[in-house]
Parts: sequence; C-alpha cells; structure tokens
Amino acid sequence: MAEDKNAVGVAVLGLGNVGSEVVRIIEEDAEDLAARIGAPLQLRGIGVRRVAADRGVPVELLTDDIDALVARDDVDIVVELMGPVEPARKAILAALENGKSVVTANKALLAQSTGKLAEAAEKARVDLYFEAAVAGAIPVIRPLTQSLAGDTVLRVAGIVNGTTNYILSAMNDTGADYESALADASALGYAEADPTADVEGHDAAAKAAILASIAFHTRVTADDVYCEGITKVTAEDFESAKALGCTIKLLAICERLTTDKGKQRVSARVYPALVPLDHPLASVGGAFNAVVVEAEAAGRLMFYGQGAGGAPTASAVLGDLVMAARNRVQGGRGPRESKYAKLPIAPIGMIPTRYYVSLYVSDKPGVLSSVAAEFAKREVSIAEVRQEGVVNEGGERVGARIAVLTHRATDEALSKTITALEGHDAVSSVASVLRMEGAGE
Amino acid sequence: MAEDKNAVGVAVLGLGNVGSEVVRIIEEDAEDLAARIGAPLQLRGIGVRRVAADRGVPVELLTDDIDALVARDDVDIVVELMGPVEPARKAILAALENGKSVVTANKALLAQSTGKLAEAAEKARVDLYFEAAVAGAIPVIRPLTQSLAGDTVLRVAGIVNGTTNYILSAMNDTGADYESALADASALGYAEADPTADVEGHDAAAKAAILASIAFHTRVTADDVYCEGITKVTAEDFESAKALGCTIKLLAICERLTTDKGKQRVSARVYPALVPLDHPLASVGGAFNAVVVEAEAAGRLMFYGQGAGGAPTASAVLGDLVMAARNRVQGGRGPRESKYAKLPIAPIGMIPTRYYVSLYVSDKPGVLSSVAAEFAKREVSIAEVRQEGVVNEGGERVGARIAVLTHRATDEALSKTITALEGHDAVSSVASVLRMEGAGE
Repeated sequence: MAEDKNAVGVAVLGLGNVGSEVVRIIEEDAEDLAARIGAPLQLRGIGVRRVAADRGVPVELLTDDIDALVARDDVDIVVELMGPVEPARKAILAALENGKSVVTANKALLAQSTGKLAEAAEKARVDLYFEAAVAGAIPVIRPLTQSLAGDTVLRVAGIVNGTTNYILSAMNDTGADYESALADASALGYAEADPTADVEGHDAAAKAAILASIAFHTRVTADDVYCEGITKVTAEDFESAKALGCTIKLLAICERLTTDKGKQRVSARVYPALVPLDHPLASVGGAFNAVVVEAEAAGRLMFYGQGAGGAPTASAVLGDLVMAARNRVQGGRGPRESKYAKLPIAPIGMIPTRYYVSLYVSDKPGVLSSVAAEFAKREVSIAEVRQEGVVNEGGERVGARIAVLTHRATDEALSKTITALEGHDAVSSVASVLRMEGAGE
Repeated sequence: MAEDKNAVGVAVLGLGNVGSEVVRIIEEDAEDLAARIGAPLQLRGIGVRRVAADRGVPVELLTDDIDALVARDDVDIVVELMGPVEPARKAILAALENGKSVVTANKALLAQSTGKLAEAAEKARVDLYFEAAVAGAIPVIRPLTQSLAGDTVLRVAGIVNGTTNYILSAMNDTGADYESALADASALGYAEADPTADVEGHDAAAKAAILASIAFHTRVTADDVYCEGITKVTAEDFESAKALGCTIKLLAICERLTTDKGKQRVSARVYPALVPLDHPLASVGGAFNAVVVEAEAAGRLMFYGQGAGGAPTASAVLGDLVMAARNRVQGGRGPRESKYAKLPIAPIGMIPTRYYVSLYVSDKPGVLSSVAAEFAKREVSIAEVRQEGVVNEGGERVGARIAVLTHRATDEALSKTITALEGHDAVSSVASVLRMEGAGE
C-alpha cells in the first residue's frame, strides 16, 4: 500500500472471525470507505498472539507487540477484537491514553468497566464506540444513545444471545431435551466447545449491563445483573409453555422502576421466560437477535437481525470505524457520555413479575386449597390454576399435578412461596418454575 | 423562565400535533434533557401563522414573524415542524445561513431539495438532522447514515405510510372495498380530509427518495421515484392475494442494481405489492411502520414501530435536538453528508419484478395458449397459471378467468405484455395487475 499523509491510520487487534472480516472489508471497499470518510483508511498493523505467514493477510502487517502497535504515531484508531477481558483492557486503556479513538466489540470488558473506559476516552477527548458489543449488526447502541436521547426509555427487552436462542428454538420445535439440543448446536457450530458463558446467561448479562447503562444513563455492571441460564429448562417446561400459548426465550430485561416511595430504580436481569406466541419476540428464531425498546414518547420499537457471526459483527465495527475516522478527518468527536443519573439498582426480590409453577402433589382432599393458601399468605394472586390426575404405568392414579399461573407479584413473595411449597407436606415435588413476560398483569 | 447564558436557544416553527409535543417535552423533561446535553435548552420562541392566547403555551413565546425568529442571536437551533414545503424551505435556508443548526421532519421538502439543504448546512458548518422525516419514532436515518456507514446497503424496503397501511390492513381483514375502508379510516382520524398525498403514494415516495439518497449516497428526489398509489386496489385483489398466500402492502423500495453492463444504478419506487404472509413486512398492521434493510455484511435488519403521531414523531425530533444541542455545547458537529456516489437512477422499465395478472377471457379453445404466447413473446416466464370458468347469475358459463404469476422479468417486458393482452381479441378485460415482492425469483 502506498503511504498517504491524509490517511487515517488503523490498528486492528485480533484476527478471528470478526477481525478477518474487518480487515477484508477495509481492503476491498477501500474506495467507498474513503468517500464516506473523506480520507482513505490505512491499515498500519494487526495485533495477534502469534505472527505466522498463513493468516491470509500480508505477514508484514502482523505483530505480537500490542503495546508498541497501540502507541504508534501513525495509528489514529484502534479496533479491539481480541475477545477476553485481558489483555484487551490494557490495550484499550493504553490506546485511549495515547490519544487514539477506540472501536471495540468486547462486551465482557465493557460490562465490567464501561465507566472507566468512558472516563479515559473523555480525558483524552477521543471516541469510544461499541455498537458491535450488543446484538451484532443490529443498531441498538446508537439508537439508544442518540435517536432516543430526548425520550425517556422505560424498558429494553431482548433476545441477545444466538446460541441459547438456537437451543431453545430447537427444544420448542422438536420437543428435544436440553442436553440433546445443546449437542446438536455444538455439532453445527452454534455453540462453543465450552458453552458456559452462553448457556449460563453470562454473555446475555454482560449485554444487559451495557444496555441498561446507556438506556438509563446509569452505570450498571455485569455483577448488578440478576442472571439465570437455560441449563435447567426441560422438555416438560416447553409442554407447559405450549399449553399456555407460549414459548420460552432467554430474555435480557432492563427496566426503569418507580418504587412505592416514588423513587426511581433500575433493574437488569436475564432469565428464561414464558413469552406469549403473539409477542414480537416469540417468533425470533434460531441464531437471530431482537431488541424491543419501550420509550415514553416513541412507544414500542423493535430492532431485528443477525446478532453474531463474522460479517454481521464486522458491519457494526465498520460503522463505528467510519464514524470515528470521519470525526478525525473533520476535527470533531462523536457524542460523549451524557451525565449519569446514578439510579440505584433494584434487587431481583423487588421486581414485579409473574410465575408459572407446576407441582406434583398427593391426591388427597384439601391439597389444592392448602397449596392455594401458600400463595395467598404471601399476597400472590392466582390468575389461572389447573389440576389433573397423575397415573402410573399400570394406569393407577398415584397423585395429581397442579399448575398455577400467578398475577404480578414481587419476585421475593413468589420465591418465598416456592420455598414454602417445596417444604409442604402434600407436595411431592416442584417440577417447574418459570417467569412469564409480555403478557400483561 | 430564568435566562441562562450557557443555555442552548431553541426556536420551534409550527405548533401542530408534533410541535406541541416537542414544546411539552422540552419544558417537562427540562432537567433530564439538560443532563444529557450538558446545558439547559431554552425555548426562545414558537413560530405560528396566527398568534393567539389559546394555544396552550405562554403567549409571549408565540410569533408570526418567522424571519425574525430564525435570525435571533439567542437562537442556536431551529426545529422546523410547519409541514408544507413553503414557507419551510425559506425558513430553513435562512436559519442555516444565520448559522443555526436545523432539525426538521419535512419529508416533502427534503425529498425535493435534500442536496441544497445539505450544502447550505455544510457551508455554514452546522447540523441538519431529519430522523423524524421517515417512519416517525423508528430510527432509520441514523442507522443508515452511521451504523451502516461501513457496509454496502443493497436494498431498503418499507411500509412507511400509516394511512395506507391502515386502509390495506382493513381491506385484508374485513374484505371491504377501497372506498369504504378509506371512509372508515377518515372517520377514525387515520386519513386526512384530503387523503391524496397518502393514498396516491406521494408521501411514501418522498420517504423513498430520502431513504435512497442516504442508503446509496446518491441524490434521489421525489421526481425520481416511480409511484403508484392504492386507489385502484380492489377487494378482488385481496381475494387473489389470499389465494396466493399473500397480503397487499404499499411498499417503498430502494434498490442498488447492477445492470447487464456491470454498471451500478439506483431504483426507488412505491407501489402496492403482493407480499407473502411469512415475510416480516406482511404482519405489520394498522398504523405501524417497518423498514427492512439488506446490507452486504449485516444481512437483513428490520426496524419496527409507530410511524406517525405527535408523541412518536416528537421522540425522533427530540433525539435530533439533543444531538444538535450537544454538538453546540461541545463545540463540534455531527457527521456530515458523505461524498455522493451519484449513481444514475434506473427507470421503472429496467427493474426486474414479478407480476400477478388476472384476466377475463372468452371461453374458447386455444385462448390459454394464445394468452401464454403473449408472455413468451416478451420473454416473460410463467411461474403459475390457473384457469377457471366464469358463470353468470343464471349459472350459465359465459367465459373464463385466467390468473398468471410470472417469474422475474423487466417491468418493461411485463407492462408491454399487459398492453398486448388488453388489446387481445380473446381477452374481455384485464381485471388486476399486481407486482409481487419478497417471494424469490
């Protein structure tokens, strides 16, 4: 490549799926990108763990000296796509301190330290963009921070993890149990060798922290997010869901709550939930992502698309890169962090939600009444209840199954009710407990 | 209101549905907006046609001297919500020349002169924002200009007019004919007293011009947009649609085409089209809007929400206002227009599309064959054909009806085929001609 004094110098850290796509597009679409930026992009170096000739890029661009790369005078923008929290944090902080703008897709890092990184960017008066960190190619960060900057966001609820959505969609469609759906997802490349971060909800929780932070102008870290994964969802849960006209989705929910005393709080939580089939999130299948935003003036908005994969994530990275480069060329900066409202986090116990509970009980008179009394004692109102006999293989009636759908109550009252039921004489087992979202009160 | 030297001065032009909401939010959410901007917004004046005490705002803010208002030294940002092209154009140009940033929702004006306005904003080095001009509260302008700035947009297809979508949804759901569905929409306030701009597709065409301009970095005006409205859509068309597993939607379509000679062109068009029921746009009902964007790396994205109404449109205006104000406070500007690619416009005749044609023919041997020959002569390939007898009130067979669904062919070849069929001896009438979108080749 010829040197160009006006060029915007770019360093890419990491050459995995996304990094390779970003490098490819920077080179193949050079002319279009230059027209949109007002100057050409010039790739100054690619940081990798191990320099090798077989990486599909000119070997002279590769370096394993990340510290030197992010300090180079001819680098204006650092694109961080290395993945884990460390050494990405160190590299990003060094880049910002060196006055480089930074584009990153590192949700785990952002969810730990968005405040620190934003402060470092502010101090250096450079851009820090991270559209690709949530929901891949789907623009959600920019709409929340810019398009809705004059509105009051009430709620963000999304399907933001493709792996778990693939597994849950398969369980819904085929009746498979969790283990076999996970095995299929792994065989097809939809789940990683160690799927823990996805199936335990940690990936979704990091995204929920980022979404809650920007939607409510409050710093929320992954530790503030209540998190349940999908490993305990059973084929029987899906049968129950179907009977209720629902499916089960792993949702990331961020909510602005007004508590009894009129105080505003923020809730961020991730769990598998029953979603009615006519809700827009119910039909988001496979590896797709969708985010529903409810704002005071805008009403309900939905954003839908591919949430992962090399090319879609690269699209989001490139959008940020072009914006950061244009700001460099034009001598400005993008919109900064707004002043933070510092709303306190609402613990999960405080959250009003609906529960679906399925119990096996002994088949004696008065059981339904005493089960219902456990709900009533904790002021949990029952919306629907169904009781049916349970027969053994010989066709003999051996007990009953009671399924209860509650109205909204605090999670604390509901979980105390479940604990009481688990210790109840007439209850042989609590077969399933699922929250329900998007179905009114 | 107390004067504040650091405040960002705002003038609002127009006090209709949207203007009133914008003024209300500026006053009621003053504290939040100030936190996000870094300085308070101060309303300096509201331009109206007639100053009166009963407008729900302090009368001293009202003025009918727009020229003076947009020239005031203490006005930093002008929010134009007057509606018609004139006097809005004059007011916006004056504001830009006076160094004010401008936020507008005026799609008709933008579709006529986006180039001129952008140049004036560039010359004055101020912001010109217009998120509210397309699809109300749904962020589409910012995602297209910023989030997808590093991607190549291939196609934008949307339902961008709530009035016609309401009418078509009603026709689909109730079997009503166009006139009675329009009358209902008028009675319920979904259609204006003079619905021409909506039902003839002009409103959608203006939005298509704006979308095509920003998606393809090419200046497209409303005159470049091929436009058919919904006034000729019949109840029988909806019966045909149902038989094909489709509904009918008024679509605004913007496409990047590569012609035979490898040249890139841009198409922008608006017409009612058959849409398969499993397509994401098919289920967008009532007064909602949705825009599907297909980009090379990002794949297919969809944006959905309320496309009109005072509050949703005000949300988009406020987002732009906060961004423009933040740029003022921080001494920068938002991203400017990118260099324009100036792709030529593809005339409608060049567009590959699919047609559904329904014909009444005389019931003689050889008619189907000679009708099919008219398609073949123009190299239009037939995908499906159905022929059925037509009986009169006495149950006597008086003719036949032939329904043809074609594969993709150029619109020119298809429209020539229709002209030939209209003049064909055996054809008594061409009952319906509809394009089909979103159903493959």
